[in-house]
Amino acid sequence: MDKLHVVKIGGNVIENREALSDFLADFAALNEPKILVHGGGKEATQMAEKLGIEVELIEGRRVTDVQNLDIITMLYAGKLNKTIVAQLQALGCNSLGLSGADGNSILADKRPTEPIDFGFVGDLTKVNHSLFNLLLKEGFSPVCCALSHDGKGQLLNTNADTIAAALAAALSKYYEVHLNYCFEKNGVLKDLNDNTSVIPTMNETEYNALKTDGILHTGMLPKLHNCFAALKGGVQYVKIGSPKMLVETETCTQIIN
Amino acid sequence: MDKLHVVKIGGNVIENREALSDFLADFAALNEPKILVHGGGKEATQMAEKLGIEVELIEGRRVTDVQNLDIITMLYAGKLNKTIVAQLQALGCNSLGLSGADGNSILADKRPTEPIDFGFVGDLTKVNHSLFNLLLKEGFSPVCCALSHDGKGQLLNTNADTIAAALAAALSKYYEVHLNYCFEKNGVLKDLNDNTSVIPTMNETEYNALKTDGILHTGMLPKLHNCFAALKGGVQYVKIGSPKMLVETETCTQIIN
Repeated sequence: MDKLHVVKIGGNVIENREALSDFLADFAALNEPKILVHGGGKEATQMAEKLGIEVELIEGRRVTDVQNLDIITMLYAGKLNKTIVAQLQALGCNSLGLSGADGNSILADKRPTEPIDFGFVGDLTKVNHSLFNLLLKEGFSPVCCALSHDGKGQLLNTNADTIAAALAAALSKYYEVHLNYCFEKNGVLKDLNDNTSVIPTMNETEYNALKTDGILHTGMLPKLHNCFAALKGGVQYVKIGSPKMLVETETCTQIIN
Repeated sequence: MDKLHVVKIGGNVIENREALSDFLADFAALNEPKILVHGGGKEATQMAEKLGIEVELIEGRRVTDVQNLDIITMLYAGKLNKTIVAQLQALGCNSLGLSGADGNSILADKRPTEPIDFGFVGDLTKVNHSLFNLLLKEGFSPVCCALSHDGKGQLLNTNADTIAAALAAALSKYYEVHLNYCFEKNGVLKDLNDNTSVIPTMNETEYNALKTDGILHTGMLPKLHNCFAALKGGVQYVKIGSPKMLVETETCTQIIN
């Protein structure tokens, strides 16, 4: 099977112009077929503040009402996605930006309003692998933002880590998929304050033990959950680390079965 | 040759939720391959006001500085484009939104700063007909917003009428192209206050005579200029009228050689 890179970058890379440029140069230089998935970052919160739109948090998680969905659509599918795509084009990478509605690429159901109503948030139901296979075969690098749709006209705010995992799993039938979660650390750390304390490999048993012992930072738990979901979905390789792991022999955490 | 519809809608359709839904239902119902090109509307100006960003006009035309380009990218490529795409998906039309950077679809040069510096505004240089041919052949309906790029990383604000004309011309080698400019009137009017005074057909000689006599509203001149450019570029049919001309035998103005 041919190799396919599915690379997810988060807010920390996106918010730093220089870090983003460095990352995009490395991404563009990958010779194999590749997909980029990006989240948003703080700009959505800043924009809501500027526009006087309230950001409601329930249990520390953001509620996506109509106005916040508009902001997310403007920033994620508009400014961020198109800035990334234009920069990749300049680097010779023929990228093509997608929300989940474009080409019916990523479908979701609106999350049930019970027990907590998070508003226009999507739980993934289907990845349109035919579209991605077509685009990849034709030499395009899809750039996916963190928006899905319900097929009934509604866009839905959707976790970018989850989109990356679902995409990687759906395409693992056709490619040897290398799923890379890039973030600000060198991998999963034993000690959050020590960037050299990277755990080199982790399987689910080890993950559960570290979780039970309270060693893992709570912010890592959903990301790791997505990593194991990807592996169970058939993804061949899953890594967490800094963006530099794409091109250099950097330390990182490999998630294994 | 197969028939291809290239349909341009302007701000007046986009700003009215009901008019937009009606239009999209008609567009989705077209059986032949089709491309939608959309402009922006007043929302960009409203957003600039809300964010305290100055909108500079020179000779009545808007200057696109970095901040205004961001707003246009957020609204045109983000909110408007994705709202349209999601609605078309719900109508069974497999649409795919594009800025000019996506798939390197529409290239432009930044307009020279002399005699007037309009900022990040693009003058079209190339339409990537291979991408559009591929998407159309695969059953997708591209939805293009009014943004091109220069291939060097810069997005450029670009007139949607001009994009529609250039797209139609580039594809007229492969399709029998029907280019439809939809706006709030039933066609080109002899009397702007009388919506029944539609001029049924107009060639360039007649256009020049009407222009000289001051009968045409000045707002129509750039649109008509694009119509004649499209015809000269090989487009087989060019019409100006209300969105209803797509599906009903409405009065409209047919632009002819």
